Amino acid sequence: FVSGKFCKDPKLATPNNFFFSGLRLPGNTSNKLGSMVTPANVEQIPGLNTLGVSLARVDYAAYGLNPPHIHPRATEILTVLEGTLYVGFVTSNPDNSLISKVLYKGDVFVFPQGLIHFQLNVGTTNAVAIASLGSQNLGVITIANAVFGSKPAISVDVLTKAFQVDKNVINNLQSQFWTDNHTY
Amino acid sequence: FVSGKFCKDPKLATPNNFFFSGLRLPGNTSNKLGSMVTPANVEQIPGLNTLGVSLARVDYAAYGLNPPHIHPRATEILTVLEGTLYVGFVTSNPDNSLISKVLYKGDVFVFPQGLIHFQLNVGTTNAVAIASLGSQNLGVITIANAVFGSKPAISVDVLTKAFQVDKNVINNLQSQFWTDNHTY
Amino acid sequence: FVSGKFCKDPKLATPNNFFFSGLRLPGNTSNKLGSMVTPANVEQIPGLNTLGVSLARVDYAAYGLNPPHIHPRATEILTVLEGTLYVGFVTSNPDNSLISKVLYKGDVFVFPQGLIHFQLNVGTTNAVAIASLGSQNLGVITIANAVFGSKPAISVDVLTKAFQVDKNVINNLQSQFWTDNHTY
Amino acid sequence: FVSGKFCKDPKLATPNNFFFSGLRLPGNTSNKLGSMVTPANVEQIPGLNTLGVSLARVDYAAYGLNPPHIHPRATEILTVLEGTLYVGFVTSNPDNSLISKVLYKGDVFVFPQGLIHFQLNVGTTNAVAIASLGSQNLGVITIANAVFGSKPAISVDVLTKAFQVDKNVINNLQSQFWTDNHTY
Amino acid sequence: FVSGKFCKDPKLATPNNFFFSGLRLPGNTSNKLGSMVTPANVEQIPGLNTLGVSLARVDYAAYGLNPPHIHPRATEILTVLEGTLYVGFVTSNPDNSLISKVLYKGDVFVFPQGLIHFQLNVGTTNAVAIASLGSQNLGVITIANAVFGSKPAISVDVLTKAFQVDKNVINNLQSQFWTDNHTY
Amino acid sequence: FVSGKFCKDPKLATPNNFFFSGLRLPGNTSNKLGSMVTPANVEQIPGLNTLGVSLARVDYAAYGLNPPHIHPRATEILTVLEGTLYVGFVTSNPDNSLISKVLYKGDVFVFPQGLIHFQLNVGTTNAVAIASLGSQNLGVITIANAVFGSKPAISVDVLTKAFQVDKNVINNLQSQFWTDNHTY
Repeated sequence: FVSGKFCKDPKLATPNNFFFSGLRLPGNTSNKLGSMVTPANVEQIPGLNTLGVSLARVDYAAYGLNPPHIHPRATEILTVLEGTLYVGFVTSNPDNSLISKVLYKGDVFVFPQGLIHFQLNVGTTNAVAIASLGSQNLGVITIANAVFGSKPAISVDVLTKAFQVDKNVINNLQSQFWTDNHTY
Repeated sequence: FVSGKFCKDPKLATPNNFFFSGLRLPGNTSNKLGSMVTPANVEQIPGLNTLGVSLARVDYAAYGLNPPHIHPRATEILTVLEGTLYVGFVTSNPDNSLISKVLYKGDVFVFPQGLIHFQLNVGTTNAVAIASLGSQNLGVITIANAVFGSKPAISVDVLTKAFQVDKNVINNLQSQFWTDNHTY
Repeated sequence: FVSGKFCKDPKLATPNNFFFSGLRLPGNTSNKLGSMVTPANVEQIPGLNTLGVSLARVDYAAYGLNPPHIHPRATEILTVLEGTLYVGFVTSNPDNSLISKVLYKGDVFVFPQGLIHFQLNVGTTNAVAIASLGSQNLGVITIANAVFGSKPAISVDVLTKAFQVDKNVINNLQSQFWTDNHTY
Repeated sequence: FVSGKFCKDPKLATPNNFFFSGLRLPGNTSNKLGSMVTPANVEQIPGLNTLGVSLARVDYAAYGLNPPHIHPRATEILTVLEGTLYVGFVTSNPDNSLISKVLYKGDVFVFPQGLIHFQLNVGTTNAVAIASLGSQNLGVITIANAVFGSKPAISVDVLTKAFQVDKNVINNLQSQFWTDNHTY
Repeated sequence: FVSGKFCKDPKLATPNNFFFSGLRLPGNTSNKLGSMVTPANVEQIPGLNTLGVSLARVDYAAYGLNPPHIHPRATEILTVLEGTLYVGFVTSNPDNSLISKVLYKGDVFVFPQGLIHFQLNVGTTNAVAIASLGSQNLGVITIANAVFGSKPAISVDVLTKAFQVDKNVINNLQSQFWTDNHTY
Repeated sequence: FVSGKFCKDPKLATPNNFFFSGLRLPGNTSNKLGSMVTPANVEQIPGLNTLGVSLARVDYAAYGLNPPHIHPRATEILTVLEGTLYVGFVTSNPDNSLISKVLYKGDVFVFPQGLIHFQLNVGTTNAVAIASLGSQNLGVITIANAVFGSKPAISVDVLTKAFQVDKNVINNLQSQFWTDNHTY
């Protein structure tokens, strides 16, 4: 056991410990966001343990969104395989600059570790991208889910003051709380 | 120069390179959030360069809030010096569990690296806390400012879909965009 | 300057510092090996500095080979975008086990840091793959070039004893010394 | 188990795993040194495991001393909560410069990792400080205890030569060997 | 258990956990290469676990060779105790520069992490060296064994194209496949 | 410049950047301690920059002592080349256990990072050892020099309380303050 995962005797390593075929097929984008993330990290590929890298395939329906989220433990490089994506990240305080770009097939964009980032399919067809991540187990914090959908909910006193809006707006946002495990 | 900062010849080091008196006085909490963070990191204490730790003093007016934010590069330990604080953090996907607690004078609470966390003064008097941070230069992402107050703004198409609310709600949230440099 | 690279003031960061369009087009595989690696690392994407990840596009003509090589500072995850590849790596002493697999479109394979690995296009059409690497500047040691094509050459006394063959075999191998910068 | 500590399933994390109330009360300073350190590290706060930070409360009677010691694995930032402290550290060879300062309530001072440092209460009242440490489990080497109070004792031949004094002086120092677990 | 090794309770540590006498005697150099490596790493010295360093003694018969090899996880500093060694390493792509030197008793040479390096006894007497390594468990890839002696063998299609020689040359090289566990 | 040292263009690297002949000759042990340390670190070998290892040669006259000291940033492995050494280290609080051993030619002993350690020549002839260190620039704190010979001196109030002896004993110890740069 290293880093909480089982480590095989190297003599017993097999090709399948280093292999994953689960990115061959598109993810199911029939959800409110119109996107799906299929991970290929140490959970799917045991041989990645301690190696500090992982991948994910992201599928986007037309106008599908991979919503604003953070990877606390990984920088991400996105490669567009199909479609046209509007992507961006926001720098930390005090600037909060939005760094954004429209990407086409074959383009590459970097989302630095720990910053809020998103991708929106701005084309009329499906889009596909590969996310390369500098951690074997990166963590994902989807901002909307964490802030307005935590279990139990964050106190309304915190949220009305944080967002400077009244209680009805916060209640509206909290009521959208959804449960499809949309991660990454 | 190391890590982008000037490193002095050790022969020339003086006590003041390792000293800071700027936490003696309370921060000014006369702002919409009713809180103020006074940092003591490598910008204020040059001797911290490469040492991987820093501090901040946080002052809270009655009902003041240090709003939901993330330190991408640091775990934080908060020690309450005065007052009563309701504090919490939300775990990453897929759980999004809120881990929260009411803290009294002398209590200590840990906010793990990269997770959204907040503190609310739930008492009728001022509160004060010391935040100990495991990075010399931790980074701060205030969720409301980054998502609804970036420059330029994130596209409304992204935000309506991300939060599953209509354009009026997003416009309302974006119009609260404020500019006092409330960081940490 | 950090890690020997220039770091911009974050206020001056632009989208193009985090963007690269150079993987849109296939590399030129008209060389003896029938393959070409197009890197997207900190040299092409300045925003990657200190972030610890990079990418490369690998193109293979029919029967093209990305020859046995090592990345001393990075684990690699290969994703096949087109074609059929026979890939493998060899474990370290004392086992020297070959871990190999035939990969199809969409498959993913991990080459652990510092181990000798290769990819051979075993199909009759072009193949394309994306290599995700856990270092911003990984280093590449192509075994044949380093051992038989160094400048100046390694002493024949070393090589005949190391490979347990006579001087003619070593001379034959050294005379293949080529100069097209086939890297990765 | 990670780093020799048990790691809980994140689903089972509770607020108390991240909380400690043991710094509310002063430590008992009725000992020869007139000081007491109360730690809040991974032993007291299981949620700190792998997070790389910890705290301690230090209480000082009038003229109490936290004697010269080293944290091999942590830089320390000390914040004075009450009283007046004379603090210092000594740089490494060949300079052995003493970097010292008198601190008042609210002042902050940095003791770089691995250097010998101390704090003396130079006021007539009790003093209190919070030590923030850049390691979850920092290690403490109290110089007097390690050199003159080890079990078994270091050979007198080593100590007379190291300190260039005669055997009687060393015997005197060794006979002060005390056993109250004064740590930090 | 930390890093896959058992960690003792520090109270139970004994001098023998930090001690090794196995480098007192020369290794047996009666093999095809005329050299032998005797390791002193975490396998022989349990107290090295997590400490990130190890040693090896290398013995060379007259004209003995420690053949071209790589330590993926360690830089090496070699100190010559007896004899005269011709040593070198080859830099990574695109330069492939050979950096070599003849060393005499007392000389020190550095082989940077992950680069192919070798030592040849160019004297008529035995030679001895100490290798200091910046990892507790460095890994060794002997180029000839990994490329031409893996189990199972790397496909001849890969090797003929990689080395640009015909099948007979590769078969000749593969037939030298030997089995004495010559490591480092 | 990386880590405060100049980094050459790799194309311009020469063998002498990785070479040091300064350990060929014994150090001069005509001093009060009867020992001398000759370092081979990044100051002497520029090619070690960023590589995280270094060496030193230690010479001991009969009964010579390398006095109790700490390397804050490095574990050390000592190899005895000539003579008989009594060596030891003391564990950290609360145990302060002395772990010691008599070493003969060819023996190896580990001093874990940050712990107080020493070596005494217990033979009647000169002794020589090689210290392998897991840092390119390890730091050395000689306990006697740092505690009793700092510039300026640590307050006698601190030292009398720390060592629980009277002012005359401390004055005696401070008066031994010597200035030969005996380091390591």
